Amino acid sequence: MVEKEFHQEPESEKDESLYGVSQETIGALEKALEDGRTEDVLELIAPFHAPDVAVVIEYLSPQLRDSLVEILRSQFDPYIFTHLNEIVREEVIEQLGIRDVAEAIGRLKSDDAVALIEDLEEEQQRKILDYVPSRDRLILEEVLTYPEESAARLMQREIVCVPDFWTVEQSRKYMMVEKNLPEKFYDLFVVDPKHMPIGVVPLSLLLRQPPSTKIKDVMLENIKKIPATMDQEEVALLFQKYGLVSAPVVDAVGRIIGMITVDDVVNVIEEEAEKDIMLLSRVTESDFYEPLLSTSYSRIRWLLITLINTLLAATVISQFQPTIQKMVALAVLMPINAAMGGNAGMQVVTVTVRALATRELGVANMSRAIWKEVLVGLINGVVFGGVMGTIAAFWFSDPALGMVLGGALIFNMMWAAVWGVVLPILIDKMRMDPAISAGPFLTTTTDLLGFATFLGLAWFFLI
Amino acid sequence: MVEKEFHQEPESEKDESLYGVSQETIGALEKALEDGRTEDVLELIAPFHAPDVAVVIEYLSPQLRDSLVEILRSQFDPYIFTHLNEIVREEVIEQLGIRDVAEAIGRLKSDDAVALIEDLEEEQQRKILDYVPSRDRLILEEVLTYPEESAARLMQREIVCVPDFWTVEQSRKYMMVEKNLPEKFYDLFVVDPKHMPIGVVPLSLLLRQPPSTKIKDVMLENIKKIPATMDQEEVALLFQKYGLVSAPVVDAVGRIIGMITVDDVVNVIEEEAEKDIMLLSRVTESDFYEPLLSTSYSRIRWLLITLINTLLAATVISQFQPTIQKMVALAVLMPINAAMGGNAGMQVVTVTVRALATRELGVANMSRAIWKEVLVGLINGVVFGGVMGTIAAFWFSDPALGMVLGGALIFNMMWAAVWGVVLPILIDKMRMDPAISAGPFLTTTTDLLGFATFLGLAWFFLI
Repeated sequence: MVEKEFHQEPESEKDESLYGVSQETIGALEKALEDGRTEDVLELIAPFHAPDVAVVIEYLSPQLRDSLVEILRSQFDPYIFTHLNEIVREEVIEQLGIRDVAEAIGRLKSDDAVALIEDLEEEQQRKILDYVPSRDRLILEEVLTYPEESAARLMQREIVCVPDFWTVEQSRKYMMVEKNLPEKFYDLFVVDPKHMPIGVVPLSLLLRQPPSTKIKDVMLENIKKIPATMDQEEVALLFQKYGLVSAPVVDAVGRIIGMITVDDVVNVIEEEAEKDIMLLSRVTESDFYEPLLSTSYSRIRWLLITLINTLLAATVISQFQPTIQKMVALAVLMPINAAMGGNAGMQVVTVTVRALATRELGVANMSRAIWKEVLVGLINGVVFGGVMGTIAAFWFSDPALGMVLGGALIFNMMWAAVWGVVLPILIDKMRMDPAISAGPFLTTTTDLLGFATFLGLAWFFLI
Repeated sequence: MVEKEFHQEPESEKDESLYGVSQETIGALEKALEDGRTEDVLELIAPFHAPDVAVVIEYLSPQLRDSLVEILRSQFDPYIFTHLNEIVREEVIEQLGIRDVAEAIGRLKSDDAVALIEDLEEEQQRKILDYVPSRDRLILEEVLTYPEESAARLMQREIVCVPDFWTVEQSRKYMMVEKNLPEKFYDLFVVDPKHMPIGVVPLSLLLRQPPSTKIKDVMLENIKKIPATMDQEEVALLFQKYGLVSAPVVDAVGRIIGMITVDDVVNVIEEEAEKDIMLLSRVTESDFYEPLLSTSYSRIRWLLITLINTLLAATVISQFQPTIQKMVALAVLMPINAAMGGNAGMQVVTVTVRALATRELGVANMSRAIWKEVLVGLINGVVFGGVMGTIAAFWFSDPALGMVLGGALIFNMMWAAVWGVVLPILIDKMRMDPAISAGPFLTTTTDLLGFATFLGLAWFFLI
């Protein structure tokens, strides 16, 4: 990529808020955009850094957003892209057009350029790559051959490598004269003649060494090398566990091909947690900036699962119509069992999904975890079965009805516990995201079993 | 805190896995612990770093865990504490006893020491502080006066400050001779005579300057100063937004009192997302390592809300017993409306809670967000109302019944949409965590309204 200067932040700081964008500024900007006062818009935007401009672009209504992007077109800071929400970003890219975006990509660090390109459709990707200077293009194309969400997609190619026989002074001189260094870095990577990483020197350590010290005498040898194909979630866990700020990425042979820095990892952690949150609540992704109709569509897909769920449940209930006819109290009580099972199951699914995601749950402690959930399910089933059974018995003055409800609750809550811990583990083993288990599978069974056990027991014992 | 040497990682690396702990090692360790072979245990543990030892301690069954901690007691690396899950950590602290823990705290960085102490009960805190050397104690006690989850609790006191009239060479010399520097650091903070931060020099920038350059000519002036009382969630957002690696923390007057580094922030991001996930699914916290009975108890508290919910719903249904008696089909169809409303509402709540947490949703775009959800609710209500109404009409050969179900679905799904976006906003305004809205408030209303509208409409139009 193009050589980068240190980003000297503008000195004037009109806005005192830490986030850089106050309500007043947004208001003034909206007015200026509505009135078409280009000069004023530029003046208002001038003190903002890229992340702040991104916030402003996201906040604005689609119409004003278009006007602002048009005004900024000739001087569009490419780092704005890296801070934009995916959906808004796509709109801005569409508006700016292939040529301007390709030009902007040439000014980005390689990891940011990849992040920008990889989200585009293949045809758009090809068109944009045609406009990128050939040396950058080769790098980008190579990175794009690695799988999505792999370490290679996160890494930047710009790194600082030194041989272990250099001295501290030599390394410092090299950094003074070499133009093509990363914009920010935190570690020197020490490589052998084959370009395999053999050590690392944190800058804070390097700075405190006498000039004549040999790099090999100061480097830390135990380094975490990240295979280029490693999943980004694994990378994030590794950074988190060992408190890394940067780590070398190696190819299949073990040669260093780039580095990952902690700022990329921070985004991955947020993304992965976000994915779990959304899937557990049956939303595809955070659709906050998605247009109305596509939000509606993506939610409908998930609600369809609920619909099929409830239709199946309704079919079960309809089998018991004569029973309900004889004893309407059953209709009053039957939602209790289904709801309690569903909720208890969701608790177990959530804890299991997160324990899998953070690797707290592994092969070694799996059977212990399952047993624990079974016991919790049993205890809670007995507690709620007892309480609700008693309430129902008094409410309808019918001890047998109470016992049926109590028994059904114990059964359904235990089932929810077992299924809630086993299901995510199974889905994880099939190499799918266990967070989806909450939607299609868990509640279907707790609903069906909830109605079936309660109405079935009632039919058998009470009618 | 005590002066720290650079942590030279052990050279031998028996285990090739990136996480440092293989299944075989755990197996061997379990056997050695069971057989009481202390020597073998120590040999197996020797190549591990603190985070790996923490993983092992967490993995082991409570009984073997106790044996391992006992074996490690005399040489317990205090950094193991910082990697242990809170629940397991408390057990280990209990086992080691006040005196050994206090001694370990003296060997930790100030932020890690605070993290360890703040989770303890007040009495335990006081006892431990009594054993900590007096200088460290004063620092710890001061930090503990700041609110929980504030920036001050995250920061470390060890920082590198230089005046702006120094040269690069002077700064380097200072770092060579000064013993009391942080273990790792990424930025020099430039302060004025009153110790107020006025600039920052990233180490990678410092390293590339000629020795005679003045600090004031190289420092970046636009720095993000973090007030000591700022909430940790805000701190994390700031780091994320501006890609910071470290930032100075200032007291009420604006003097620098410490710094926060990105590794602390990574944990906060994970924690905050985790809290949302758990609350949305009505679990208090990740209770993976919690003992059986306390897990059961904390889940019961949330299930109690579901129970009250369903009891209220049952009360609503019981009002319509005569209606159901006349038309049992209502009992078959009524769970559909409640479930669809509840699920649609959860989708909206989840998206809103996360948009609030990531500050995507603010005052400026609130009304737009609410309107969007209302429209999505209307569209989805019409879609599902239409589909389900038709199915019900054919199923029971009763067009009027289909229309009643369809109408009830439209109403309930729109209600779920409005309430799902407004509720978290209201709860957020009351300075509570909006993620709790999913539990006690959302499903109660979608359930009650779900049953009430469907059965009410049926009673009015069909009976």
